[in-house]
Amino acid sequence: MSDRYRRGIDIAEQLAADKVAHFVQSGVAEVAPDFARMVIEFAFGDIYARDTLDLRTRELVAIAALAAKATAGPQLRMHVESAAGCGITKAEVIEVLMQTALYAGLPAALNALADCHDLLTDHDCLTGACR
Amino acid sequence: MSDRYRRGIDIAEQLAADKVAHFVQSGVAEVAPDFARMVIEFAFGDIYARDTLDLRTRELVAIAALAAKATAGPQLRMHVESAAGCGITKAEVIEVLMQTALYAGLPAALNALADCHDLLTDHDCLTGACR
Amino acid sequence: MSDRYRRGIDIAEQLAADKVAHFVQSGVAEVAPDFARMVIEFAFGDIYARDTLDLRTRELVAIAALAAKATAGPQLRMHVESAAGCGITKAEVIEVLMQTALYAGLPAALNALADCHDLLTDHDCLTGACR
Amino acid sequence: MSDRYRRGIDIAEQLAADKVAHFVQSGVAEVAPDFARMVIEFAFGDIYARDTLDLRTRELVAIAALAAKATAGPQLRMHVESAAGCGITKAEVIEVLMQTALYAGLPAALNALADCHDLLTDHDCLTGACR
Amino acid sequence: MSDRYRRGIDIAEQLAADKVAHFVQSGVAEVAPDFARMVIEFAFGDIYARDTLDLRTRELVAIAALAAKATAGPQLRMHVESAAGCGITKAEVIEVLMQTALYAGLPAALNALADCHDLLTDHDCLTGACR
Amino acid sequence: MSDRYRRGIDIAEQLAADKVAHFVQSGVAEVAPDFARMVIEFAFGDIYARDTLDLRTRELVAIAALAAKATAGPQLRMHVESAAGCGITKAEVIEVLMQTALYAGLPAALNALADCHDLLTDHDCLTGACR
Repeated sequence: MSDRYRRGIDIAEQLAADKVAHFVQSGVAEVAPDFARMVIEFAFGDIYARDTLDLRTRELVAIAALAAKATAGPQLRMHVESAAGCGITKAEVIEVLMQTALYAGLPAALNALADCHDLLTDHDCLTGACR
Repeated sequence: MSDRYRRGIDIAEQLAADKVAHFVQSGVAEVAPDFARMVIEFAFGDIYARDTLDLRTRELVAIAALAAKATAGPQLRMHVESAAGCGITKAEVIEVLMQTALYAGLPAALNALADCHDLLTDHDCLTGACR
Repeated sequence: MSDRYRRGIDIAEQLAADKVAHFVQSGVAEVAPDFARMVIEFAFGDIYARDTLDLRTRELVAIAALAAKATAGPQLRMHVESAAGCGITKAEVIEVLMQTALYAGLPAALNALADCHDLLTDHDCLTGACR
Repeated sequence: MSDRYRRGIDIAEQLAADKVAHFVQSGVAEVAPDFARMVIEFAFGDIYARDTLDLRTRELVAIAALAAKATAGPQLRMHVESAAGCGITKAEVIEVLMQTALYAGLPAALNALADCHDLLTDHDCLTGACR
Repeated sequence: MSDRYRRGIDIAEQLAADKVAHFVQSGVAEVAPDFARMVIEFAFGDIYARDTLDLRTRELVAIAALAAKATAGPQLRMHVESAAGCGITKAEVIEVLMQTALYAGLPAALNALADCHDLLTDHDCLTGACR
Repeated sequence: MSDRYRRGIDIAEQLAADKVAHFVQSGVAEVAPDFARMVIEFAFGDIYARDTLDLRTRELVAIAALAAKATAGPQLRMHVESAAGCGITKAEVIEVLMQTALYAGLPAALNALADCHDLLTDHDCLTGACR
């Protein structure tokens, strides 16, 4: 187990305790275990581990970029689920999604809001403080 | 209620009487009511309200652009549903979707046709005159 | 020379007399002559040749789809240059480009307007009737 | 029935015996029969029929391009299903999908792997030799 | 002049004093003056004017979304130029662009860094405090 | 210097001796040296280093994916320049670019051919055997 993987898993767990569960559910670890490891290493072990941006800013960037892409619903949901743990309120998530309409069009923002609808209305899912 | 909103709602209702119902179903108005309002204001109150293009042309442009994007299924369906009300036949909708294959590839056109399959075969859903 | 090619060239020439010149300039015919032929055959010989939509509508669809893609500047310019020949005014082209902001974001529309700036201001380039 | 269509159907059948079934299921042939024909003619009759690349390479190119687009799930699945018939192993498909992460981002690769999960784990679906 | 336009211009000027100059240079105001006004009204008068996110966060979101799109070089540059005025350091901009590689691929991040190269090396262009 | 970096540089040099020069020219190494290193590590040290696919197949996949994205001209050129070194002929590169028209539209293929025009006509630039 590389240092990058260990560092990546630490950060992934700060973001979402059910991260590993998600990978198993989506079946990526089953089909491509090396790729599941690389995603942890590169995304969290290399990029997120850098301290120029704090986790809160990293998550705002992730949500903005994924919503603008308009082709990454599962990943957008995962980061919206992680947002509360980093002190991002539902109102802030909604605001970021609205703003992406400027850059990616109204459907991108509308579909992002629809994809995350339950996460943004459920009173329990975006609460908590940065672990 | 701004003039832009009132003007936008008028046009939205010309396009599709169940427009508001759609917004409520998709939950956007519940999660981001200000954004639901802005969409009406900007899309219909600002852009569609301009008289350089008639509603029929506006809908052809919407269908072409949304099919070419390939990431806006719900919005494509909404505009295909509105097409008949503007005097656009099913054959014309199909033709526009076919043409987008040139610019966005065969899968974009095939998936647009599949997304709207029921709307393009149901004998009742694309009839009527511009309300 | 296939019927599709002959039919395609006829339509391409209605759209823009300098079409062939464009292909030669861009070097496609030099590098991939079979592909240059297929583009004429598929785009104009197969799709444009169908009579469900007239050339004016075809060009509105092309401009909307290409502007929404935001990655096809040269093709967008070619179709904007062809627009006048089909009875589409500069004001209508501008209006279509503005409308694509709804579906593809403000930068897509702004960059499309910038890409075609000279064509939309030059008093000579979008005049004439459908040849 | 054109030569291009006959040639295209021959190749389509080499790729996937249930190709025609797929088109009927997706309803494209019902809604836009001419387009279903053109897809066969252009994709398989024109492009795939050229002998500069063999079918195995064609399928690798198709899988790479469709995964990178991230908007063509059904077409990606169809080509992954056809891969084994061209001598491409599941391990090679997984490797191509992993590599697209470099060009299109981690979500594109993760979602491609998820979209094709059953095809890549089912021991029966990617076996056989090039027909 | 609408309240939204006045409010939008105020914010645009906080972001970049040469904003209006930019619009004139790019020729949008000349070709489509109503659209230039709408962009100010919608982007800055409607969205940016909302106080759920501060200007610093708005600019981070803009940079992330525009880099992820990979088709909006001029707009990305404009927001990178505005970043320093909102207290965003060059190191932070670079970090956001690096992070977009995760969501949009390595070329998107590499090309964003190349597009903004002079802005990120020039010692004078990203200094100053939020006006 | 990590093992991944050393392994990545080895492969990068097999692909293109002027790889490092390219990074310096594009200025990425100057602005974001850690990212330049990560690109080598992830792209070549992690992915390309895996032996399920040979370098020739890796380059075909790269060219197909980058052409389909239509937003990565510099990276497409770099991989087309590397193609000959892996035993890929110009005719094969042209064929891959033509095929991407099926998945990404005619403009994507036309612009890819135009972007690489000099590389595909210059008799000296795509010759040589896999180093």
